[in-house]
Order: sequence, then C-alpha cells, then structure tokens
Amino acid sequence: MIKVGIVGGTGYTGVELLRLLAQHPEVELAAITSRGEAGTAVADMFPSLRGRVQLQFSDPKDAPLDRCDVVFFATPNGVAMQQTRALLDAGVRVIDLAADFRIKDIGIWEKWYGMSHAAPDLVAEAVYGLPEVNREAIRKARLVANPGCYPTATQLGFLPLVEAGCVDVGYLVADAKSGVSGAGRKAETNILFSEASDNFKAYGVQGHRHLPEIRQGLAIAAGREVGLTFVPHLTPMIRGIHATLYARVTREEDFQALFEQRYAAEPFVDVLPPKSHPDTRSVRAANTCRIAIHRPQGGEMLVILSVIDNLVKGAAGQAVQNMNLMHGLDECTGLGQVPVLP
Amino acid sequence: MIKVGIVGGTGYTGVELLRLLAQHPEVELAAITSRGEAGTAVADMFPSLRGRVQLQFSDPKDAPLDRCDVVFFATPNGVAMQQTRALLDAGVRVIDLAADFRIKDIGIWEKWYGMSHAAPDLVAEAVYGLPEVNREAIRKARLVANPGCYPTATQLGFLPLVEAGCVDVGYLVADAKSGVSGAGRKAETNILFSEASDNFKAYGVQGHRHLPEIRQGLAIAAGREVGLTFVPHLTPMIRGIHATLYARVTREEDFQALFEQRYAAEPFVDVLPPKSHPDTRSVRAANTCRIAIHRPQGGEMLVILSVIDNLVKGAAGQAVQNMNLMHGLDECTGLGQVPVLP
Amino acid sequence: MIKVGIVGGTGYTGVELLRLLAQHPEVELAAITSRGEAGTAVADMFPSLRGRVQLQFSDPKDAPLDRCDVVFFATPNGVAMQQTRALLDAGVRVIDLAADFRIKDIGIWEKWYGMSHAAPDLVAEAVYGLPEVNREAIRKARLVANPGCYPTATQLGFLPLVEAGCVDVGYLVADAKSGVSGAGRKAETNILFSEASDNFKAYGVQGHRHLPEIRQGLAIAAGREVGLTFVPHLTPMIRGIHATLYARVTREEDFQALFEQRYAAEPFVDVLPPKSHPDTRSVRAANTCRIAIHRPQGGEMLVILSVIDNLVKGAAGQAVQNMNLMHGLDECTGLGQVPVLP
Amino acid sequence: MIKVGIVGGTGYTGVELLRLLAQHPEVELAAITSRGEAGTAVADMFPSLRGRVQLQFSDPKDAPLDRCDVVFFATPNGVAMQQTRALLDAGVRVIDLAADFRIKDIGIWEKWYGMSHAAPDLVAEAVYGLPEVNREAIRKARLVANPGCYPTATQLGFLPLVEAGCVDVGYLVADAKSGVSGAGRKAETNILFSEASDNFKAYGVQGHRHLPEIRQGLAIAAGREVGLTFVPHLTPMIRGIHATLYARVTREEDFQALFEQRYAAEPFVDVLPPKSHPDTRSVRAANTCRIAIHRPQGGEMLVILSVIDNLVKGAAGQAVQNMNLMHGLDECTGLGQVPVLP
Repeated sequence: MIKVGIVGGTGYTGVELLRLLAQHPEVELAAITSRGEAGTAVADMFPSLRGRVQLQFSDPKDAPLDRCDVVFFATPNGVAMQQTRALLDAGVRVIDLAADFRIKDIGIWEKWYGMSHAAPDLVAEAVYGLPEVNREAIRKARLVANPGCYPTATQLGFLPLVEAGCVDVGYLVADAKSGVSGAGRKAETNILFSEASDNFKAYGVQGHRHLPEIRQGLAIAAGREVGLTFVPHLTPMIRGIHATLYARVTREEDFQALFEQRYAAEPFVDVLPPKSHPDTRSVRAANTCRIAIHRPQGGEMLVILSVIDNLVKGAAGQAVQNMNLMHGLDECTGLGQVPVLP
Repeated sequence: MIKVGIVGGTGYTGVELLRLLAQHPEVELAAITSRGEAGTAVADMFPSLRGRVQLQFSDPKDAPLDRCDVVFFATPNGVAMQQTRALLDAGVRVIDLAADFRIKDIGIWEKWYGMSHAAPDLVAEAVYGLPEVNREAIRKARLVANPGCYPTATQLGFLPLVEAGCVDVGYLVADAKSGVSGAGRKAETNILFSEASDNFKAYGVQGHRHLPEIRQGLAIAAGREVGLTFVPHLTPMIRGIHATLYARVTREEDFQALFEQRYAAEPFVDVLPPKSHPDTRSVRAANTCRIAIHRPQGGEMLVILSVIDNLVKGAAGQAVQNMNLMHGLDECTGLGQVPVLP
Repeated sequence: MIKVGIVGGTGYTGVELLRLLAQHPEVELAAITSRGEAGTAVADMFPSLRGRVQLQFSDPKDAPLDRCDVVFFATPNGVAMQQTRALLDAGVRVIDLAADFRIKDIGIWEKWYGMSHAAPDLVAEAVYGLPEVNREAIRKARLVANPGCYPTATQLGFLPLVEAGCVDVGYLVADAKSGVSGAGRKAETNILFSEASDNFKAYGVQGHRHLPEIRQGLAIAAGREVGLTFVPHLTPMIRGIHATLYARVTREEDFQALFEQRYAAEPFVDVLPPKSHPDTRSVRAANTCRIAIHRPQGGEMLVILSVIDNLVKGAAGQAVQNMNLMHGLDECTGLGQVPVLP
Repeated sequence: MIKVGIVGGTGYTGVELLRLLAQHPEVELAAITSRGEAGTAVADMFPSLRGRVQLQFSDPKDAPLDRCDVVFFATPNGVAMQQTRALLDAGVRVIDLAADFRIKDIGIWEKWYGMSHAAPDLVAEAVYGLPEVNREAIRKARLVANPGCYPTATQLGFLPLVEAGCVDVGYLVADAKSGVSGAGRKAETNILFSEASDNFKAYGVQGHRHLPEIRQGLAIAAGREVGLTFVPHLTPMIRGIHATLYARVTREEDFQALFEQRYAAEPFVDVLPPKSHPDTRSVRAANTCRIAIHRPQGGEMLVILSVIDNLVKGAAGQAVQNMNLMHGLDECTGLGQVPVLP
C-alpha cells in the first residue's frame, strides 16, 4: 500500500483527491492537513465522504508527512515551493497540483505569479506531469508538477498538430470554457451562485496564468516559440472544460488519422469519430479527455474540440495517474470511474 | 459471473444501470434491448460509456434474454407485466424498475396507472424491493418490484417512526423535491432546459402515482391505514430527491436513537448527527440515503429530512443492490462509488 | 417627483431597487450610500445599470439623505434602527427592507436577531408593510417595515384561511423553497455556484428568523396564537420563492371562492384557477404573487401554493409599492414589468 | 396605436414579443395565431402574461391579419415566404423573425435551408433589419428580415473593424456561445434540462445556418468576400449570447476609439471601457448589445467580446426596434426595460 499525504485538503482539488483515493485499492490515506480546519473530521466538512474517509484534518506542523510515500499539494500557489525540499530530503515523492513547478523559466513564472520563487533548482528537477508527453520521466520523478486544467485540455488538443508541424503555430487560438469549480472553493462574490448562474462571461483576456504554461508545452512540441491567443470563459456548470481550438493548416494531412495514431495507446485520451461534438458531461467525474477534429467546409482552418473534467483529468485524476506511474502501478489503477451521465 | 439483460436501455434508469453494471466485478452484460435503437452501439448513444460498454442495442425479439440469469426492466409502465412470465418460466429472475408489480391491490394499481393488469398472480408473488424492509424475501425472490424514487426516500424517512408507533399516522405530510431526471428522458416541452431551469414548481398535487405506493408501504409498517399528503416538486437540478417529512409526535421517544438503531446495520442508510441538513449532492451518483431528524423548538412536530440520488438508491442502484441479494453476493458489491461532490 | 435615497445599495435588494426605481416615472434618485464603495459609479459595479443610473455611491456621512422625501434601507439588520430617528425628525419617510421594525415584541426580536434594539418606540410606530393587510395604515405611515420574502409568500397564502377561521391554526406547516439570491450578495462558501448548483437542501430547520414574523402576522389575522412549522430550503435558482402550505380543514368552505374574494381587488395577488401549479418563473422580475388552492383527493388537508419573486414582491417591489401608497400615487406606478419567461 | 398581428406565437420569440408588446405604449395587439393552440387563451399557455394579454390564439385562417398595420412572423423557417405577399398586397408591413428573407443569394439560401424559396422577388425587396447598418432603409421598408441571434452579436462585434479595413478579413474567427432558449421551444431530447444542464458542447461545427448570414453582412461591410470560421456552442443558461471574436490586425488604429465612434449614436449598443468583460446577464431581458475590445499582450490579435440577450436584441426586441422605425416612432419606444440582474 502506498502511504499518501495531502497538504491542503479543503479545496475542490483536495476533496476530489479524497474521492479518488478512497476508491484506490493500493492507497492508504495517512494524513491530510489544513491550518484552518485542524481537528475537524474530513467527513464533517464533506458529508459525501461519510463512511469512506475516517481521517481528521491535522495541523501542518503535526502531520506525519515525512513518513508518507507520496505527498500531494492541493494548496494555493507558493506553498509547495516552501515545503517540497524537506519532503524530498526525507525520501518522500511530491506531486504539486498548484503551479509552483510548472514553468521552467523562473523569470516568466515570477512575472505571472507575482512572487519570488523559493526553489528554482527544484523547478529544474521537476517533471511536468502530462503522461501523454512525459510518461517515462514521470515514472522516475521525485517531483511532479501536475498540469493546470486549461493547459491539459488545450495541449492534448493541439499536440498532434504541433508535433507534426502541419499548422501555423504563429497564430493558434484557444477559446476555452470552464465550469465554476475551476475557480476553487473560495468565498468570493463573483463566483456566488446568484452571480455565476444563468450567465456567461470571458475573463483574464489580457492574460491568464495558464497562458505561459500552455505556450511552454507547445513550444517544446514545436521546437520553436508559438503564438497563442488564449481566452478563458466562465460557464454556469460545476465541472468541465471545453477547449475550442483553432489552427490554420500549413500542410495537408489525414488529421483524423494523425490524432488516432498519436493517442492510440493512451488509456485516458479518446479520439472521437469525425464530426463529433463532445459534451463535457461525457467525461464528468472521470479521468478522460475526449477530442474531436473538424475542418469546417474543407477550408484552411482546423477546429479541435477537447473536453475534460477540470477536477479529474485537469487536476486530481491526473495527479493519481502520475502517482500510479511513479509507483510502478498500472496507470489506470483506481481511475476506472465511468462518467456520470446525466 | 452473473449474465445480465436489460430491457429498455435508452432512458435514464437504463444508462444508470449500465454505468453501475460496467463497474460491477461479478456481472457480464449479455444483452440490452431497444425497439427504436436496435443496431446502435450503446456507446454511440451515450458517449460516457465509450470504452466501457461494447454492446449494441438489440431488437427485443432477437435478444437472448432467456439465457440471462437476471433481466432488468427499465421500461415504461406496462411492459414488464407482459414479458415477465416467459422469463420466469425460462428460469430467469426479473427486477422491474417500473411500477408494474409494486402495488398489491390490483384495483388500486389499475386506477392510478390507467390500464388493466396483465399478470395479477405475479403481483402477488413479487417482492417489493426495499432491502431495508424485505431483505430476506428479496434473497429468495424470482421477481422483485424495485421501488419508486419518491417512495424510497419517503418510506426510509418515515419507517422508524411508523414502525415504532410514536407519531400520528393519520396526518403525515411528505413534501418532496426531485431533480428533473426523475421525469425521464422523454422529449416533452415542460422538462426542456429553458422551462425547468431557474424555476421551481409543484406538480401532481391532486394525486401522484407514488402516493398509493408510499401509503401501502407505510400501512404495512403501521399495521393500519395511514393518512398521507404527498406533494412532489420539480427542482432545477439533474439528480436528487429531498423529502421533507412532517409527523406529529404521539408518544415521546429518543427519536435520534430510534433512527440510529433502526438503520445501524444498513449499509446504504446513513443517519446524520442531530440538527444536520443533508444536501442532495452528498449522495450524488451513490447508492446512499442520508437522513436527519429535527424537532423544531421542541414542539410536537417532527421534521425528517431524507435525501437520495433518484437514479441510484431511487432506481438503478437499488436494483443492483437487489440483484446482489438475489444472487448471494455481498449486498454492496459494485456499489462502492463515492458521491461526486462538488 | 419623489426624491429617493437608498442606504446600502450594493446588495441584491439594493440593485433591485435601482432597477425598479430607474423605470419609475415619479422618482428622482437623489443618493445611494455604501461605506465600502463610496466614489464608485453605481453602473461600474452593476453594468446592467449603465446608461440608466448616473449616481455614484456616496459615503453615508456625506449623502444628502435628510433632503430626500423617502429613504430605503437595504442594509443588514441593525442599521436602520440606528439611523431612522434622525431621518424621521428631518421629515423624511423611511422604508426598511431589513427586519429592524418588523416584530412588535421587542423581546422576541432581540432573541431571534441576537442584539439589543436601539429604538423600541419606533417599532411601536412602524407599520408592517404588507399592503394586502395594512394598506390604509401604510398610506399614512412615516415608517414602514417592509416584510421578509418568506413571510410575504407564506402570509399571502395562509391569510384567507386564517382570517376566515376555517383551518386548524394549531398545526400549520409551511414548506418553503427559495432561490439563492435570498441569501444575499455575501462572499460565503455555502452559496458559491459550485456548492449551491445542482443541489437542494433544507436549512434553519431548528428555527429561522422569519418564523416569528410569520407567526405574528398570522396571529393577528387569527386573533390568537398559531402553531406553525416552517422549513426553508435552498433551491438552485437565482430568484423565486415557492411556499407549499398545509392546513387542516375545520370548517367547510368554497376555498377557491374564499381566496378569489379575499384578493379580488388586489393588483399584485393573482388567484389561479383550481388545480393550478404556479411556476416561480411566472412571476420572475415582477411584483406579483400567484396562488393556487388544492384539496388532494378531497381529504381534510388543504395545500396552498404561493409563489413570488423574492427580490420583487418579497423585497424591492413591495417596498416601491409601499412608497407609492405613502406618496399618494397609484399603487402600481412603476411596477408594470411583465414577468420574464423563459 | 399600431395594430399588431403575430403569426406563430407559441415559441420563445413569440412569447417574448408578447412580453415587450404588452408594455409598448403605442401598440394594440390585434391577433396572434397558432394552428395547434387555436382557442386557447395566451395567458393560459404563458401564465406570466395573466392580466397583461387578453387575446386567445386564433386559427391562422380566421385571424384578421390583413387589417393589421404590421405582422410579425415568429414561425419556423419557410412559413413567412408563403404568406407575406398577401399581407403586403393588403397594405400590411411584415417583419419576419425567421430566416426566409435574410439571404440575398437564393441559391445559398436554398442550400443551407434545404427548401425551394417561394418568393425570391420579396427577398430582393426585403431590408435586413439591423438598424445599426440599415436604419434609413428600415424606416421605409414594407418587409424587414429580422437578423438571427448569432448574426446580430457577431456582426455588431466585427463591423467597426471590417468597415475600417484594419483587420485581415480572410481569417476571422467567431466562437459563439448561446443559452438554450436559442434552440427554441421544441420537444427535443437534446435540449432537455437533464441533457443540457451542467454541460457544455459545441454543435454545428461543420456548418450552421447563421454562417452565410454573417458572411453576407460582413462582406457588404468589407466590400469583398470574407473568410469566417464560426463555431456555435450550447451553454447551460436560458438566455444570452456571448460572441468571442478574433481578428488579426493589419493596420494600426485606436481600436477602442474606433468602436466608440462607430456606435456613439446607437441607443442599443454600449461600448464598454477598455479591458472589460461583459456578462450576458448585464443585458438579460433588455435590448442592449455590450461590446468590449481587447488586444492581449499588445499582440497582433484583437479579441472582441459581444453580448446580447438572444431573445431580445437577438430576436423580439430588435423586431420591435424595427417596428418603431417603420412607424416613425422613437426607436426606443417600449424598449426601456432595465436588464434583470441578478
């Protein structure tokens, strides 16, 4: 059994980790921390876990994290970079669900995240946890930077095209829509039910923190800088990301075949038949990314549709997938949930 | 492995059965029928099942139902009563998720369902599939009448009081609220998104078909007729029933203890601590009923709150629970899903 | 033109007052205050008011409230009782949308609201602003206590029965469901979209502050104390209250006729035909209460369904109705909005 | 008073026309037809109109449409083209809210709408009813083709750029999101609450009927053919369209000033301050289009955000605006509704 610790378990990625780990046959939940809720039973805060998770939140100071095999950080940005070194030194592997180790260029990270980085050397060591790109490196990693939700949906949709070099990477457009849980479980007015329900809006059009992360991933795949316009939107649903991706063809290909081949061996990427329109609900509560390829009216513009559950393949599920890889388990262990529809 | 057939798999109880059975370790899905969709791959109609269910819908005439161990009817009312006898004769056990075998008094059934009953003798044989009441009978049953969604939530909430004889059963009130999936997957104007969203209404106040079913169950428990006012409401959510139950105390008891004892051994009934307010989402996609007991201002009126997922404990999950009982499996097999929250 | 001031305009009742007053032909908006947002243009905070409201929020100290004809308090409980006397002394009429002046018994108020009352004499003077009960007194009032949302829907539904003395007022049940805007525009976790959407729950079953308010109104109508069980619920919609009311018949009446006669002259109460099921959306954004009367299976229990928009007839619209009465205008002036459906 | 007839009043554009016309001071509702609902009181079908609309639906054969001043067609495509000539001959002006007269090229119309056109000469005569482009022609028109919802939001967002010739019109992208009411009030499975709620998807990526309409409008403005990729999406809200528009700069401009000047005199187009993110709810139930201009990171790509209420500025409100123009009224008459927020 893998002994697992979670730092910061009161947000949505935390409770989603608990949901998945409570069903994982090879995991023993050893500790979960929360400064504000120390002493509270996890199941009192999240009644959905009654009878399934017996743990209490512990104060971060008291939690036996250094005796875990792996620790997940489900914390705000800036926390993991302070605490990871000590854990690694104690022989604990770390998966950070926040952004501390995602961006290799420290200057870019500091500009977008507005703080100094506490552990640049660990950024250099960290493996970006997108198994469809870095599977072998993840297996051996001590420290995995779990990708963001938008970056997961967007990169999986663009990667086959960018890797094949058949589109104009100077003018990519990613128009992405997220359910409100992507904003976290914070008491903020703008994500109140009465504000976000029956409403739709863009946000962060001037620049969203996931932009440099996506750009970095696509640049690695392209072997050059890419030009990307990324516009996130808030849509009145709890879970789900739908990325609508636009790229101009520069070299003819059988694009459907390109995607099918690229993802033929991937257990969590499902390339749909031509002309499909994936619903976000078709992946609700499951670790799957579904992708459809369109070329409207046979023109020069490709339209790729990519959907994930932002809390699963976009966060906690992908983190468990990475944990499985890091511990030599079948990658799919504990991730067999069938999407909940309707 | 239990060979399972499903008749009528294109509605919400059908797809929910498929979701649960696809994760059930002891089940082999042998056939699923649909007159309208024969030849269509199940996963083409429900993309959430891609990679998980390989079956096609078969025409009812061609499906090898009589070689199954158990057949579920997820059909409109009136279908199972026509086809059950042949299956029973072939040695197949039957679980009807519709209402054909729920009401013992044929006259009452015919009045509320507006048709003649085709198999009154099978009604007499059928076991009402509420395991918390009829567990032993279900184990031996050839034919189980799976309870309705409102009746499950309402009976589980009232039963301890009615069995104990400590409330006035002449004036029970059940004010119940259902998510829209309870109305089924029918193309009807009144359950369109634009009609049912951001809206709330009662319906069927003059009389709903679940009223005689609840009355029958409570009368058996009380050993006498009960007076019940039952008002169902449509609430703008997909899944979930919240029954708010009112009963006047006629004999003092420790009501919290009464419920805790009644359900102490029940794997799928969770009695919450005093003064709790269960969310429907705390049971979303899981086979659990959560119940809270209130006595506002210490007055004469008890208020019981009972929540279930109408598609799971209120339909497909309870049907699988019954199947497990009928086949000698652990009752919880394949029903370990943790509720999806948020 | 009536010069109007609003104290506390950043909540939902405040912005709803602005929506209605911006369309009112006899009103000049003179001032709106907010401690936190002083200097901000109202239309910057609520873009729906761009081009319609030119005011800025002013600091409460600087606002020319004492030169207004009427001041609305759209503030938290406890504010109006501190500031009303000075306004009345300056000849300004006051309408309080909070609860400071609703409960005549100061001891009961202090118990339920958890603070000492600063102006008991003004409570004695204040008129409870339910025009269907107190129209003539409202016309002459200096100070109106605008009713709560649940109390409006519940009293309008019970009043004809209670006034006529034809039901058992010892065991009334009000099972009420509210849209989330009823909880206000506060940054609280439990009313986040991801918490409140696709979910349903009761709250405050042990006791809600609207209980003594409803009891007081019904007791006046009955001429005696009433026994009321009141259970509020949170339903995933923005606006609307649906009160489902249960009362046992003690004297036969033509109940449909009773309601029709009681409300025949009321411009904002609509008694529906027998056996109707009013949607909350049928009053969305309008100052109407719609009521339907049921007697299921001709039994002893009456079921009354009463719907309002909690922000209009349950708050800002009723306040404007009261303002019209206080200033000798046609009661309906500025309140002609047709409900928004779908 | 303008005598108004409505053909086909049982859909969402029909009931929205009724909502607006019931509040219009210069309109007398003379007739509303429905084949299926002849004899039914309008207010029985739409209780939101109780007390506001006294009409019954009449059979199309019996309705005195030829004695109206103006007739609105709120019918499926293909109806107005059959009936318009007779009305025009009788001296009645016609506003078609469907697509029969929107596309000047009959071949293109017949290809996209899948039927033969019954009145090509009337297409030639019809004025495309976008007042921001064709105001003077609308004033004199006998026949107005009211624009589609997506085309209104999209054209208003692109027009200043295309007219000024400062973007590459060969590669425009319109990523548009619509509330579900845009799909109409048809009993179809895919727009059921349980299918469309808590879900997001694209549709019609291979080609949507609004594509040729938008292309036509932009081509007129550009003076040349335009290349447009248009992807519509279904978002789980009732009303609202959010168009996110992408265009590559080919000539530098002060784009904010360009939009402000273009729409300076427009009563129903609101150009927001730089860096704004318009909510769809900021125009809910009102005839306003709000537009924001972005240039992320000062790059080559402009991002324009354009929001409308699909049933108002995208249908019934724009139709009333056109009616006002055709009858010499102030363009804003009866369209003063303040958006409903929250």
